Amino acid sequence: MEPNRREVASNAASSIVDPLAPNYGDVHYEALQSMWLSFQVWTTVSCLTDELKEHTVLLRGWIQTIRPMSKKMAFLTVRENGCTVQCVLTAQATDVLVSEDMIKYATSITKESFVEIEGVVMVPRHAIKDASQQVEVHVRKICCVNRAPRVLPLSVEDASRSEAAIEKALQNGVQLVRVNQDTRSKYRFMDLRTPANNGIARLQSQVLNLWQFLLNEDFEEIRSPAINEGSSEGGAAVFKLDYFGQPACLAQSPQLHKQMAICGGLPRVFSVTDVFRAEKSYTHRHLCEFTGLDVEMVITSHYFEVMDVVDRLFVEMFDTLNQNQKCQRLLQAIKNQYPFKPLKDAGIEVDPLGDLNTETERALGKLVLEKYGAEFYMLLHRFPLADRPFYTMPCHDNEAYSNSFDVFIRGEEIISGGQRVHVHEKLETRAIECGIDVKTMSAYMDAFRYGAPPPHGGFGVGLERVVMLLCGLDNIRKVSLFPRDPRRLAP
Amino acid sequence: MEPNRREVASNAASSIVDPLAPNYGDVHYEALQSMWLSFQVWTTVSCLTDELKEHTVLLRGWIQTIRPMSKKMAFLTVRENGCTVQCVLTAQATDVLVSEDMIKYATSITKESFVEIEGVVMVPRHAIKDASQQVEVHVRKICCVNRAPRVLPLSVEDASRSEAAIEKALQNGVQLVRVNQDTRSKYRFMDLRTPANNGIARLQSQVLNLWQFLLNEDFEEIRSPAINEGSSEGGAAVFKLDYFGQPACLAQSPQLHKQMAICGGLPRVFSVTDVFRAEKSYTHRHLCEFTGLDVEMVITSHYFEVMDVVDRLFVEMFDTLNQNQKCQRLLQAIKNQYPFKPLKDAGIEVDPLGDLNTETERALGKLVLEKYGAEFYMLLHRFPLADRPFYTMPCHDNEAYSNSFDVFIRGEEIISGGQRVHVHEKLETRAIECGIDVKTMSAYMDAFRYGAPPPHGGFGVGLERVVMLLCGLDNIRKVSLFPRDPRRLAP
Repeated sequence: MEPNRREVASNAASSIVDPLAPNYGDVHYEALQSMWLSFQVWTTVSCLTDELKEHTVLLRGWIQTIRPMSKKMAFLTVRENGCTVQCVLTAQATDVLVSEDMIKYATSITKESFVEIEGVVMVPRHAIKDASQQVEVHVRKICCVNRAPRVLPLSVEDASRSEAAIEKALQNGVQLVRVNQDTRSKYRFMDLRTPANNGIARLQSQVLNLWQFLLNEDFEEIRSPAINEGSSEGGAAVFKLDYFGQPACLAQSPQLHKQMAICGGLPRVFSVTDVFRAEKSYTHRHLCEFTGLDVEMVITSHYFEVMDVVDRLFVEMFDTLNQNQKCQRLLQAIKNQYPFKPLKDAGIEVDPLGDLNTETERALGKLVLEKYGAEFYMLLHRFPLADRPFYTMPCHDNEAYSNSFDVFIRGEEIISGGQRVHVHEKLETRAIECGIDVKTMSAYMDAFRYGAPPPHGGFGVGLERVVMLLCGLDNIRKVSLFPRDPRRLAP
Repeated sequence: MEPNRREVASNAASSIVDPLAPNYGDVHYEALQSMWLSFQVWTTVSCLTDELKEHTVLLRGWIQTIRPMSKKMAFLTVRENGCTVQCVLTAQATDVLVSEDMIKYATSITKESFVEIEGVVMVPRHAIKDASQQVEVHVRKICCVNRAPRVLPLSVEDASRSEAAIEKALQNGVQLVRVNQDTRSKYRFMDLRTPANNGIARLQSQVLNLWQFLLNEDFEEIRSPAINEGSSEGGAAVFKLDYFGQPACLAQSPQLHKQMAICGGLPRVFSVTDVFRAEKSYTHRHLCEFTGLDVEMVITSHYFEVMDVVDRLFVEMFDTLNQNQKCQRLLQAIKNQYPFKPLKDAGIEVDPLGDLNTETERALGKLVLEKYGAEFYMLLHRFPLADRPFYTMPCHDNEAYSNSFDVFIRGEEIISGGQRVHVHEKLETRAIECGIDVKTMSAYMDAFRYGAPPPHGGFGVGLERVVMLLCGLDNIRKVSLFPRDPRRLAP
């Protein structure tokens, strides 16, 4: 709100020059091209509490709603970082700080425009229903930084509404707009402005950061290539591309490279990377591109050592989510629109079973919940070898079974892991048994031929699926920042 | 080293049964299939110091060298996590713990095999030249867990040698093996076992973790998709692929998506992700796939706010690398093979210049070093607009120049950044001026059409290039864990 910025472009709302005209209007584009460096102090909307009563503050944010009450009064809701505050303009006879022209200008600003406001914080007598902050800002200056068009593809207000609110209105005979998932995904840059979706994106950032916990357990973070020769794990569902004339594909997981890092003398590694699945799955929990946390480690005697790491990682995660104030605030914002129950975690272990489909998984989840009161549990071990990838270590006493495990949250699989075959001849035999053309993964095979790696194991987790299940969401597209499925390649 | 594991497979080195036979031999494969859970305590090679004098320890690691001295004496060097220790076997008349057959077995183990050893720590009178640890382990039991073939594609000893050591030997008339970069890249899973290369991989992990510093500055970590419609930033050098019948390409950067996150009400975001360049560049510093740190933030008045974040991030990084003991150990291991001088950092600012080529960059780097004694500096601002991408904000007073900057380490560019055009009409005009078909990036354009985003800016950094220049390395392929260039798609 520098004086120069008040050289506004379009405040000629009235033919008679308003003496308050310098206090409102659209900001010149030029002034937004880093014309000067300002040392003004801005207050975030989330910081607007009664502690600031009668203080003059500078705010920035998106206009969420505009309510003109009369020529002399209007309310604006300004949103920033998922928080909202009610801003008031009153042109009283006694108030020479706000003119009718200023109100006319303010109410002409379109929804979802970005504005800057200078105002005084006031504490109203009654609770404010339609904003997160329980103070009002009495506007003294207002300027529009970037103006949104009048017609928008979705209303943030509509997109923020809970299913319960829509149902309740319907009972009162009012049909409110329900924004469907496809519209949300298409206009994700607007959908993300709702407190719940903004909260999910921020919570995902917290979960990502929590994975750095593995550094405390002597893991090193590695980066593995997305573009690979052949088909990454022998599966058919890979995206193929041309790499300077060579056939290549996108990695289905960093599996082969994290194992090669083990061969390279990095005994504990993890990677956080994009993984790709060219599968035509149209379910609530499948994406064609997602973020995988992949962990691999040398074991001294048993792959239970790997499961101990899973356990410590997830307990750390649950503890932080339950105790960290920021996480609690985010979970609350998500819950306001998408209600869910907090997760009951326990280290229950369930015994041998074959590979499960979604329905069986959920039925099992219900069973475990009823019997053990747990929604986070490991399902181990001895998965039939035929249901696991070729690199899975068979059980020592019966090669029809394998040293592998799955982990579940709210009845859905989120982690697969196990011990790997570390001896070249055995690995090659298993690959051939699984119908894989070993020539297409010769570099990986070489690592075992010349690498003489120690026994090792690991696991893989999908970020979006973890966040979806932590928050009890019904669709993984609510978590992925820019989801990719067989029908969606943009934005 | 459980009793059962001593049921070794191939210790019949002599026709007369050795009473010490249970103490050596190859481990049964079955015993490595998680047969039981052991609670043995293993000592890492790095922990072997004189504090453990006369203690019995359990070790695991790769056999780096084997020196049979006589039938009654042999030395083995065992390597783990970049550290090495000398292990001694002596079959004296008075020593009933080691037999000649045991020595015969031990010296039959091939280099780079993985072994387990039980032994007693001893402190020799003289310094040990060929191992990092200054104690010896007197072997009592030894077994081979995974055996390497006799002929290997490269010797870790050769690959660990510095250029100086090769030169010195040559002066004495000895021609030592020099392992070239291509062999190293091809057998990267072995090349990574050298202390320097292992150290580079671990240092990269530290640098990756340091980027989480941005969370303290109120940034959120986001994930952006690698697969996109059209050509990500209008450049020609993209990898193309078929996405369920739709034409798609791999992201050249998360630029468009981090800006869409800004439009979505996430005011400060960063992403750490794979970026792809289908450029036929055969230089020491170009890769076709690398790890990009991308940062984007709302600015209040000037893009210098972005440069302040760069400054704080890199100062934090330099401080940690200089002060953290682990980083110092890693840097020392790297320096032993690849000598370099510590970086002199300073926030020098250099004024207007056009886009530079490698040679000019280096000459400028030399100049800055001589004049200011600095090897880390920002080159700002006002790069000619024509040299920057279409989304770059022009200067307010002369549209031939732009609000952008570059940052250099040791005379090479590592960061590009600047302010972005945040107004839809202006962005579209710039895209068209730059010859971009705006239809191929309609989702991005839509975010500005309906998004009314606030003024913002950001920057991008390449992980591998930062680590390369921090360590003064001559080739980016020494940093990338599994490098991808126009000729290399594996391992």
